[in-house]
Amino acid sequence: MRDVTQTTIDLVSRPSVTPKDEGCQDYMSAILGPLGFERENLVFHDTTNMWSRRGTKAPLFCFAGHTDVVPTGPSNKWKYPPFEPTIEDGFIYGRGTADMKGSLAAMLCATEQFVKDYPQHKGSIAYLITSDEEGPFINGTTRVIDTLEERNEKIDYCIVGEPSSTERTGDVIKNGRRGSLTGDLQVKGIQGHVAYPHLVKNPIHAIAPALAELARTQWDTGNDYFPPTSFQVSNIHAGTGAGNVVPGTIDVCFNFRFSTELSNEILIAKVEEILARHELDFHIDWTFNGQPFLTDSGTLVEAAVESIKSVSGIDAELSTAGGTSDGRFIAPTGAQVIELGPENATIHKLDEKVKISNLESLVSIYYEILKKCLT
Amino acid sequence: MRDVTQTTIDLVSRPSVTPKDEGCQDYMSAILGPLGFERENLVFHDTTNMWSRRGTKAPLFCFAGHTDVVPTGPSNKWKYPPFEPTIEDGFIYGRGTADMKGSLAAMLCATEQFVKDYPQHKGSIAYLITSDEEGPFINGTTRVIDTLEERNEKIDYCIVGEPSSTERTGDVIKNGRRGSLTGDLQVKGIQGHVAYPHLVKNPIHAIAPALAELARTQWDTGNDYFPPTSFQVSNIHAGTGAGNVVPGTIDVCFNFRFSTELSNEILIAKVEEILARHELDFHIDWTFNGQPFLTDSGTLVEAAVESIKSVSGIDAELSTAGGTSDGRFIAPTGAQVIELGPENATIHKLDEKVKISNLESLVSIYYEILKKCLT
Repeated sequence: MRDVTQTTIDLVSRPSVTPKDEGCQDYMSAILGPLGFERENLVFHDTTNMWSRRGTKAPLFCFAGHTDVVPTGPSNKWKYPPFEPTIEDGFIYGRGTADMKGSLAAMLCATEQFVKDYPQHKGSIAYLITSDEEGPFINGTTRVIDTLEERNEKIDYCIVGEPSSTERTGDVIKNGRRGSLTGDLQVKGIQGHVAYPHLVKNPIHAIAPALAELARTQWDTGNDYFPPTSFQVSNIHAGTGAGNVVPGTIDVCFNFRFSTELSNEILIAKVEEILARHELDFHIDWTFNGQPFLTDSGTLVEAAVESIKSVSGIDAELSTAGGTSDGRFIAPTGAQVIELGPENATIHKLDEKVKISNLESLVSIYYEILKKCLT
Repeated sequence: MRDVTQTTIDLVSRPSVTPKDEGCQDYMSAILGPLGFERENLVFHDTTNMWSRRGTKAPLFCFAGHTDVVPTGPSNKWKYPPFEPTIEDGFIYGRGTADMKGSLAAMLCATEQFVKDYPQHKGSIAYLITSDEEGPFINGTTRVIDTLEERNEKIDYCIVGEPSSTERTGDVIKNGRRGSLTGDLQVKGIQGHVAYPHLVKNPIHAIAPALAELARTQWDTGNDYFPPTSFQVSNIHAGTGAGNVVPGTIDVCFNFRFSTELSNEILIAKVEEILARHELDFHIDWTFNGQPFLTDSGTLVEAAVESIKSVSGIDAELSTAGGTSDGRFIAPTGAQVIELGPENATIHKLDEKVKISNLESLVSIYYEILKKCLT
């Protein structure tokens, strides 16, 4: 069987900081090609994407992931050089080991073994791989999905290899994600000297009660699968720097993570109603980052839960917590989507690492899921 | 009689941007010396101050002012070079013409004439002149006052030559100023990712209701001489720049302009009570810029009002509005203090100018006040 450790090391050695791929997709194709996968390169601007499929029949089982990694930060503060993967105490250290080149390696190992064991499996297997998941993600998975939709090519089951686990591989499956909506708000007032309060209209004073109301509003109570919708202001700036000048404007950036109980349209209407009721002179630029999605039951979730139980003896927790992922682009096509990968404690940090035994479990879990879905 | 226009031009030609004096005080002494004034140079660090007195008896009448000017801004945008005073349509153009070298010139002309007409006047006349009123003002008037206090030298009447007027000289006398108190507030929270709201404590959310309460609080209703105390937030900043990170702290700068109904101690206690009641983890650095002061009646105010009426036919308005001035350092000694100078429409701006006929009126007004107070 292909060695998942060596495969991970081969991928992590390629310094593919977003949006660079640095040959990772060629490396993957060199494994998949001999197994009967047909590769399609989908390059959009600076982003390299790969759609690689074995077979033409339904159901279509897809492994989705990204070859790009986040920047290393100060590389001299790492225990080992971040792009020279190093094994110590059963862990592989290096940027991307957990997020998510270890998963890519596990997919490749599981796929190779599965195709060898079941060359006549039913349906098809595909890989949807991008080099921009960590960045602006405009030319990544979403563009590939557009391409598939145009030719009516439908994914039935999709495993996104994001590091979903906390301690042991498979202890958490992400079976959905909250929606994300960002607002860039500007409120206008009238600038002037603090000594002449009758000549100014202080936008900081004007916005304060509205902000207080937004912060204390309960947007929903969540549901069985989602925590309550959360509102967070991330940035607020006003002032000329001078202590004796009332500024003319205030800029506020905020973000919603919202459940399937709400939509971006409802949130936009509620926020604008609150701001208007406080009689603010405001403008908002809205950025919609994705609707919430949920794969609450069905073949894929059941296959994943059972496979984890049989391989690791763990009862997986289904969760929709955490940040966004490319699953949000795939789920709206009707696909069943889960995120399942190794432990995420060190992702995006210095000394990112993954436990080798966890990766080996992941190979077995992916293999079992393929077997349950395609044989 | 000495020409107030030429005297203004001589002073404005000296580019005495804070804290530079550029020989202005020497120029003034060259006029005052022959009139019997004894000059004392009080140099503190970068600031040149002058205490010049004629006579030893009480009452002591003091002209106070500053030789420094604010920066010109882009001098190529001026109609005439800012330090080459130019006459046009009855105005002198140049940096400092209105704030406040025109006043210094009027003081000198009035004093010279008064001493010639009344060489045996009662009491004494003094000049308290600094080269740092527009800057940090740490080594200016406040240090001279300390020196006078140490030797128990008391000012009875003081005219600060700040440009108090709006259209015609003497239409407004400032007979007091509000107090000023600045707070630099930091509120602490817990930084984290917006997608994990249970792990963060958002300081922007925490401060919003407290800010709303501070902004809507009526601190007092003012009194016959002062408008209500005003609270203004001038600067507010929080955020890492990233839209998906809740910041760990928020910084807020605010300022009170307060009436004689309140003191800095009361305001500090009230603000800290409000912040504590909102259960904020906060720290404030307070900067106390001066207690409010008021010269509500007495010899000096009456002399000024009558002199303005007799010279210009105007009923002067007594006002405590506007920013701080060096009067705040002099009034606490027990002196009667007013600010009386030319029109302030162009001060600190491009093309600062003063109307020559207004300066001529100012000479006559200062002369009449001297006569009423010292003969």
